[in-house]
Amino acid sequence: MKDIKKAKKVQFSSGTIKRLSLYLRKLKTIQDNNVNVISSSAITQLLNVTPAQFRKDLSYFGGFGKRGVGYNVSLLIKEIEDILGINQEWKIALVGTGKLGSALLGFEGFSKFNLKITCAFDNQKNKIGENIGNIKIIDIKNLEKIIKKQNIKMAIIATPPEVAQNMASQLVKAGIKGIMNFAPVFITVNKNVVVSNIDMASELENLVFFVKRGELKT
Amino acid sequence: MKDIKKAKKVQFSSGTIKRLSLYLRKLKTIQDNNVNVISSSAITQLLNVTPAQFRKDLSYFGGFGKRGVGYNVSLLIKEIEDILGINQEWKIALVGTGKLGSALLGFEGFSKFNLKITCAFDNQKNKIGENIGNIKIIDIKNLEKIIKKQNIKMAIIATPPEVAQNMASQLVKAGIKGIMNFAPVFITVNKNVVVSNIDMASELENLVFFVKRGELKT
Repeated sequence: MKDIKKAKKVQFSSGTIKRLSLYLRKLKTIQDNNVNVISSSAITQLLNVTPAQFRKDLSYFGGFGKRGVGYNVSLLIKEIEDILGINQEWKIALVGTGKLGSALLGFEGFSKFNLKITCAFDNQKNKIGENIGNIKIIDIKNLEKIIKKQNIKMAIIATPPEVAQNMASQLVKAGIKGIMNFAPVFITVNKNVVVSNIDMASELENLVFFVKRGELKT
Repeated sequence: MKDIKKAKKVQFSSGTIKRLSLYLRKLKTIQDNNVNVISSSAITQLLNVTPAQFRKDLSYFGGFGKRGVGYNVSLLIKEIEDILGINQEWKIALVGTGKLGSALLGFEGFSKFNLKITCAFDNQKNKIGENIGNIKIIDIKNLEKIIKKQNIKMAIIATPPEVAQNMASQLVKAGIKGIMNFAPVFITVNKNVVVSNIDMASELENLVFFVKRGELKT
């Protein structure tokens, strides 16, 4: 908790946070292999970062390694979880239960990190009231009411692009502070809300470009 | 084509390519609204970038706007498609047909950009031979043979994390040059192969962090 407060005073990039997230994943694998203490050089090698980068990322929050002693793995995991805010469960609202939305409902990667989709919304009459796993699909008309009632702060948009902006606006009105957008479209929200765009076609195009460049070289 | 060759001589970030990809998406929307010519200031406003950034991104490939005349929308689309390499169809192999893989098979965003999943692999006996849409699921044992036969250069990994590295190695051996990895795990490949990691739990953690920070401030 103190580390989060400390973090408010410094500037760091979302890159730092993403790396911490990756460190956490790797550290959990290390922990699963019953390693309790790990040297600075061993951990940075496993994480595929430079020791300088690793120290810098941790130092934003008050570094917790001891020189010559190495890192206590479970302590480091706990500290990073505290920094990331995933030491508590976070509820997520899902908007859109098409193919992608349904897949996300079944995605096991979330629960591992204390993230839980607790409600799902759709506007299609034949879907409303149906269950996907143990989540009942709720009429989109009740979005604001349910999100406020459940005090949910995070949402995933997995709708067609043409309704994504409208959904984002409704979510923000309902009190959502963080949105993960899978619709391939720009979303504008006020500056107190964070949006993470997952544009898969764009990622693939990025790959295509570099693959094509590689082919021209050979 | 000349632009691609030109591009080989300069250094630019994958950020540039991702932005070009977003420009392309927006330009297509503009085209759908029957706009043929657009001024520099109008386009950068729509794209939510500074004119300087926009000119810089295009200039890597020999900028194609005419001062005082603005941009010809369909020409700009064609040029960006040439740069990105999506003026031709790219075949994609999908590995893993669980919930996420199945959703990706049905994802319409790919075909819009000339990207097409042409084969899907799995190791589960009860899935092999089944169809998802019009794609038949193929035994993973035939991965190398099929990929070589179809001359596929791009792949998506949507397997459980514990087999993702092994799959990546097999894909590279089969001639794959670009991998989009959805498994929440680090993948190591040789430097001639490009990997794009889509780590959704990490993206969500990133959101959690900033949402939590926002709450502490208020």
